[in-house]
Amino acid sequence: MRNLIQRGRKIAVLSPVAWRTPPRQYGAWETVASNIAEGLVARGWDVTLFATKDSVTRARLHAVVDKGYEEDRDVDAKVAEYLHLSEMFEHASEFDLIHSHCDFMALAYSHLVQTPVLTTIHGFSSRKIMAVYEKYRDSYFVSVSDSDRAPGLNYLATVYNGIDVSLYPFQETVGDDLVFLGRIHPDKGVHLAIQAARQSGLPLTIAGIIQDEAYFSTQVQPYLDATQIRYIGPLDVPGKCELFSKARALMHLNTIPERFGLVLAEANACGVPVIAMDLGSCREVIKDGETGFLVSNVTQAVDAVQRISEINRRACRQHVVDNFSVETMVAAYERVYARIFDSSLL
Amino acid sequence: MRNLIQRGRKIAVLSPVAWRTPPRQYGAWETVASNIAEGLVARGWDVTLFATKDSVTRARLHAVVDKGYEEDRDVDAKVAEYLHLSEMFEHASEFDLIHSHCDFMALAYSHLVQTPVLTTIHGFSSRKIMAVYEKYRDSYFVSVSDSDRAPGLNYLATVYNGIDVSLYPFQETVGDDLVFLGRIHPDKGVHLAIQAARQSGLPLTIAGIIQDEAYFSTQVQPYLDATQIRYIGPLDVPGKCELFSKARALMHLNTIPERFGLVLAEANACGVPVIAMDLGSCREVIKDGETGFLVSNVTQAVDAVQRISEINRRACRQHVVDNFSVETMVAAYERVYARIFDSSLL
Repeated sequence: MRNLIQRGRKIAVLSPVAWRTPPRQYGAWETVASNIAEGLVARGWDVTLFATKDSVTRARLHAVVDKGYEEDRDVDAKVAEYLHLSEMFEHASEFDLIHSHCDFMALAYSHLVQTPVLTTIHGFSSRKIMAVYEKYRDSYFVSVSDSDRAPGLNYLATVYNGIDVSLYPFQETVGDDLVFLGRIHPDKGVHLAIQAARQSGLPLTIAGIIQDEAYFSTQVQPYLDATQIRYIGPLDVPGKCELFSKARALMHLNTIPERFGLVLAEANACGVPVIAMDLGSCREVIKDGETGFLVSNVTQAVDAVQRISEINRRACRQHVVDNFSVETMVAAYERVYARIFDSSLL
Repeated sequence: MRNLIQRGRKIAVLSPVAWRTPPRQYGAWETVASNIAEGLVARGWDVTLFATKDSVTRARLHAVVDKGYEEDRDVDAKVAEYLHLSEMFEHASEFDLIHSHCDFMALAYSHLVQTPVLTTIHGFSSRKIMAVYEKYRDSYFVSVSDSDRAPGLNYLATVYNGIDVSLYPFQETVGDDLVFLGRIHPDKGVHLAIQAARQSGLPLTIAGIIQDEAYFSTQVQPYLDATQIRYIGPLDVPGKCELFSKARALMHLNTIPERFGLVLAEANACGVPVIAMDLGSCREVIKDGETGFLVSNVTQAVDAVQRISEINRRACRQHVVDNFSVETMVAAYERVYARIFDSSLL
C-alpha cells in the first residue's frame, strides 16, 4: 500500500545532455538514467525525463537542448548544461523528487529549490570537483559501487547499475575471440588486453570510441593487423551483442579502479565470462571463478584465458539477472526514494 | 530624499571569478565590477561584492573561490563558476538587487530567486550563448555601448564603463611612441598597429597578455626588434600610466566591432589621443578630431598619426571625466536601479 502511494509521486529524472538518452552508442550516464526512467515507468511511477530533445522515452520528456553537445559541434557544452539545468530546477516544484545524474553541476542548484535532490554519483572525474561535493555533502547520494565512495557524503545506499537484460541475448556456445569493449583510453588497459591476446595466441576484437588519440596511435594501432588484433570502432547495443555472440571472454584489464563497469554486466548477460583487473568495483560485479576471473596482471590474465571453460555461461547470465538488471536496480532505488520521502516527512 | 532611501538598499555586485576583483592586470569585466562596487560604496550604498577571496574592496566581500581560475591552474573554471554562482544565489534573499557581471551563467540562476537581477552585458562572446539571453530576454539588461546590443532584450539603458580617473595622471607633454595596449589577438589588430608604426617611421610599444599564441608568433614576433617595435607583456594600472606618459597616441585598430574599449578611456584620461578603427563602440568613446581620430584602414591611421598635434590633450582628459569616470557610471547605474525598484513596486 505504501508503495502504491509512493508510485503516485512525481519523479524528475535528470539525465546529462552530453549524449541522447539513451545514447546511440557510448554514454554510460545517459544509459543508466534511461534505464532508471524506463524502469520506473514500467513500475507505475509518474516520471518526467529531462534530457536532449531527441531522447527516446516512455516517460514524459522535458527538453530544451536539441542534441547532445558531444554529438553536435554547433552546441556549446557550457551553454547546453546551464540551459538544461536551469530549466529543470525552474520546474522543481512540480516534482516530489529530483533524481540527478548530472554530477556537481546539479548539486550547485539543489539548495535553491524545496524538492529533495538525489544524486547518483557515476564517478568522480577529478579531485577538483570535490569542493562542490563537500559543500553539499548533506544532500542525498547513491554510489554505484561500494568501492567508489568519497568520505563524508550522505550516502543512502549503493545501487548497482542495471541493464535491460532482454536486449542482451544469451549465447550458450563459447566463441573464439577475446573482446575488448570500452573507451580507448589508458584507464581501460587496451594495451594490456593486446598483450594478453598476443601471449594467448588468440584473436582480439577491440571496440569503443577513441577517447585518447595519442594512446590509440602509439599503444593500439601498431598492433592492429588483418587477422589477430582488430579495431572495429564504437558499437550500439545490437552491435555489442553481435560482438559478444562470438566471444570467448571479455578482457577488462583496467589500470585504475573501476567505478562500476557496465560492460562487465553486458558481457555476462550474453553469457560471456569476464577477465577483469581486480581494481575498484570489479570484484563487486564479477564473482571470481564463477562469472569470470579477477586478475592482477597480464600473466594472470593469460592463465585465466586458459581456464575459461571452467566458467558456466548460464551462471554468468543468472548473476546479471539477479543483481544487475533494470528491475533489481529500480527496486533498489524505490527503497532509496522511500527513505527520502520518509525523512522529508511528506 | 528618494535617493537616500534607495541607498539604504542592499546591492550584491556579482563579479566573475576568472581574475581577482579588481584584476592585477588584465580583466575588463572584473575591473568594471570593482569600479561599480567601490563607486556605490563611496555614494553610501550597502554593497556586498561576490568575487574571489583575494579580492580587494571597501564593500563587504563574500567569497568561496580562493583565486581566479585564470591565475591558478589548480582551479577548475567550471567548478569555480558553479560554486561562486550557487553561493551568490543561495544568498539572494539578503539583497534588494543583484547586479551581475557574470554573463549567461548568472541568468541561468535568475529565475530561481525573487530578487531582481540586473545584468551588465560586457559582450557576447559567441552566437552560441544567445539561446540563454533569448530565454531570459525579459530580465533587466544594461549595454556598455549603444552599438553592442542584441535585438529583443529588455535593455534599461546603455551605461558606459567608467574608470577611476584619479589613478590616471594627466600628461601635458606629447610623447614619442605609439602604443598598443590590449589582448594580443587578431580582434585587437596588433598587426595593423605594427603596419601603421612602420609606415609612420615611429616606435611602437606593445603591451598586453598574449591570448592567441599563434597570432603572436606569426604576426607580431617577427616584427619585434630592439628599437622600433617592442613587446613588454601585460601591465598593471601604474604600468599603463607609465606607458601612456611617453605616448604620442594609442593605436587601437580593432578588426571587429569594439564592445566598449576601456583602454580608450584610460589613454584619453592620461591625455593620450586615440587612433581607433571606426567599428562598434569606438565612435561612442572617441570624439573624432577632438579626443583622437576614427579611421577605416592603416593608411588613414598613418595620416592620423601626422595630425596628432591637432588634438588638445586636456580635452581628452576632460571628455573622460565627463563621460567615462566611475562617478558618471555609478550615477547612471543609480538611475537604472531606481527604475528597477520602481517597477518591482518595492
